[in-house]
Amino acid sequence: MALAQHALRLEQGRSAADAPPDRASGRSAPTLFPAATTTRRRVVIVGAGFAGLEAAKALAGSPVAIVLIDQKNHHCFQPLLYQVATASLSPADIAWPIRSILRNQRNADVMLARVNGVDRDRNVVMTTAGEIAYDYLVLATGATHHYFGHQEWEKAAPGLKSIEDATRIRSRILKSFEAAELARDLQTQRCLMTFVIVGGGPTGVEMAGAIAEVARQTLRRDFRHIDPSEASIILLEAGPRVLAAFPEKLAGSAVRALEAAGVDVRTGVQVTTCDEAGVLASGERIAAGTVIWAAGVKASPAAEWLGAAHDRNGRVAVNVDLSVPGSDNIFVIGDTAAASFEGRPVPGVAPAAKQMGRYVGRLIGARIGGNAAIGPFRYRDYGALATIGRRYAIVKIGRLELTGLAAWLFWSVVHIYYLIGARNRAVVALAWIWNYLTFQRGARLINS
Amino acid sequence: MALAQHALRLEQGRSAADAPPDRASGRSAPTLFPAATTTRRRVVIVGAGFAGLEAAKALAGSPVAIVLIDQKNHHCFQPLLYQVATASLSPADIAWPIRSILRNQRNADVMLARVNGVDRDRNVVMTTAGEIAYDYLVLATGATHHYFGHQEWEKAAPGLKSIEDATRIRSRILKSFEAAELARDLQTQRCLMTFVIVGGGPTGVEMAGAIAEVARQTLRRDFRHIDPSEASIILLEAGPRVLAAFPEKLAGSAVRALEAAGVDVRTGVQVTTCDEAGVLASGERIAAGTVIWAAGVKASPAAEWLGAAHDRNGRVAVNVDLSVPGSDNIFVIGDTAAASFEGRPVPGVAPAAKQMGRYVGRLIGARIGGNAAIGPFRYRDYGALATIGRRYAIVKIGRLELTGLAAWLFWSVVHIYYLIGARNRAVVALAWIWNYLTFQRGARLINS
Repeated sequence: MALAQHALRLEQGRSAADAPPDRASGRSAPTLFPAATTTRRRVVIVGAGFAGLEAAKALAGSPVAIVLIDQKNHHCFQPLLYQVATASLSPADIAWPIRSILRNQRNADVMLARVNGVDRDRNVVMTTAGEIAYDYLVLATGATHHYFGHQEWEKAAPGLKSIEDATRIRSRILKSFEAAELARDLQTQRCLMTFVIVGGGPTGVEMAGAIAEVARQTLRRDFRHIDPSEASIILLEAGPRVLAAFPEKLAGSAVRALEAAGVDVRTGVQVTTCDEAGVLASGERIAAGTVIWAAGVKASPAAEWLGAAHDRNGRVAVNVDLSVPGSDNIFVIGDTAAASFEGRPVPGVAPAAKQMGRYVGRLIGARIGGNAAIGPFRYRDYGALATIGRRYAIVKIGRLELTGLAAWLFWSVVHIYYLIGARNRAVVALAWIWNYLTFQRGARLINS
Repeated sequence: MALAQHALRLEQGRSAADAPPDRASGRSAPTLFPAATTTRRRVVIVGAGFAGLEAAKALAGSPVAIVLIDQKNHHCFQPLLYQVATASLSPADIAWPIRSILRNQRNADVMLARVNGVDRDRNVVMTTAGEIAYDYLVLATGATHHYFGHQEWEKAAPGLKSIEDATRIRSRILKSFEAAELARDLQTQRCLMTFVIVGGGPTGVEMAGAIAEVARQTLRRDFRHIDPSEASIILLEAGPRVLAAFPEKLAGSAVRALEAAGVDVRTGVQVTTCDEAGVLASGERIAAGTVIWAAGVKASPAAEWLGAAHDRNGRVAVNVDLSVPGSDNIFVIGDTAAASFEGRPVPGVAPAAKQMGRYVGRLIGARIGGNAAIGPFRYRDYGALATIGRRYAIVKIGRLELTGLAAWLFWSVVHIYYLIGARNRAVVALAWIWNYLTFQRGARLINS
């Protein structure tokens, strides 16, 4: 492949010897981008999720050279991934090219590469495109699925963290109905039309609600030999109740909405095996053609790169200013950080990630500008939202609690507002209105 | 994998022994769908492109049992594939689930399977989901890329025939710019930013125009180390001119529009090698990071399945009623057929495919209804269209010839009109308006 060949050449070409010295820090280090940018302090940000992107934007007015590295060319709006997985939205509707987002921020450089490690002694990040020296490093590499030591379950029970995960799960759900249509015996059909979702957090609840809607509404009249509305959608939660982050009353209302939509909600159920045949849940075998994992996440390997202390989910222990103990020029933010505020852990949600990004961006800007130190990171909790199907949601903002259609409208407006780009907002709004009116889903493609 | 296992079981389960006899034809044959449908004559249609879908629809009112088999779950609107390949549209915008299209046609069964062969003696189609007996068989399996005996070029120079092809080419184009941004030497950069399109028919012309627009407009300000508008887009045509199907004046006007858009149009150039480094074109080495093949198509292997006579492009020689010599219950339509009308070959375009599908559907319906025979197939030429960039097209309808913006508006309306489904029409119209106003493209995803 031509590209692979070029990449190789790049790596070989980028040795310390032929790079100009980094004037700002006085070190001689290998630099990715020679000349021009090297006269300014370089801030390397790894990960263009909510946290990393916000950090880059917060540095827009600072005299720095930002290099934002991501292994994907797009920022993905993760809260709506389940809608790609359930055929409502197309991948591009919730993804936006990182370059395009930062087009007008002339101090920001975007680099498509995968990071393999960090050399804290040499202040260098190792990437698939060579080494990059930094003055400040911000790690915002997010989290991935956590199978609690059973990584072998991943194949049987995929999780939902990227666009690729979403299209894979979409294909899997749609293929199950196709195979059921061709199956001759009832037992096989029933197995293929059983969908188990492991984990009763917002993702699990939203997936279960959306799959129920696909089966009961969207596909209802499309098959001749099966009745998709007879599908079993089973939501398994190990804890005593689903949506533990919400007040009990709201979560209870959500469970009733799920059950009305045809989801079998089971709590206090421990999954001990995931395989091709289904799951073993608290001793009971559930034969299922599709198992989706929404039970837990683990931080990216940033802690390993840094050789830093971390919690059991791999999140890096950070100081009150989100820096890493021992390196006041390295910050960890978003789902990769084990941050806390007022004695409670900062949750792994998009608003928290954005707040951390903005805070660290400002902190670095202030330090470079020689300004007085900024106080510790403060997390502001704006509340929580979850949705079930096409017109039900629960919302908690401070003391305000909403359920039903009003909450769903609020949920819709908030999500459209936070999408990046006018085009995506228009297309997503259109898709939801269309889905609301017709029960149809516009992205029923099997292509992986 | 659970699904693979089930598919296997299906194949094993479908033996001739346990299937009921086909009452209509009096034969004992393995049937996919036992009971119910077997009291009616079964029409098996292979391929849900323009031709196959139209044949199924034309049989909507007939007392037949239709089985429409396709290896994909969606019908793809091929004329707009190049817009997926160049990041204007999302795959789902030009694809529609086949089941959904035929939802209300109760005599039609849709089956997701791949056909491997036909047994003309037993009147049976072999598929990955077992054998299926037919009373009438319609083969509408389309065409694929033709490398004129150099199938090994496919990897270096992919063609554009499916959604998967389109997303692969999209990733390739976008990755080239990303790699150029990271490249250190000018020569590598120049190679990565050179795009060669082989073949000057409508697909090649439309791809070249769209890539030029991506480079010169969409990406213009997104990079820091390269200037995407310096990209070379080279269109190579072996014949004396591009768009040979159009009158010389119209084609000449299109060439001027291509050149104004920044495409280097070279005619009379024979490509003799395609490899990772680029192409060898009439003895000249052109170093190119991306080569796209639009130089020719070859029919699907229907002729092999039938053991039928075919032309050098693999298209099955058919009778004037599109049946296969020797089998008056087997028809070949669309790009797989070498049909002719008034002494001239019927072209491989969507309107011709639809006309053939409609004709064969009506013919079978008439025969089953015991009506008088229908006359031979007549092709009606509605004209031809091609577009370059975001506001130029050429149109020829009978004696009417249009170029420029008026032609582009006409082209847009025609394509939106023929898309399936209100949602797709709205989304595509929106995408084009947005692209027209902003030069941006909404689907810049690298994901394969």
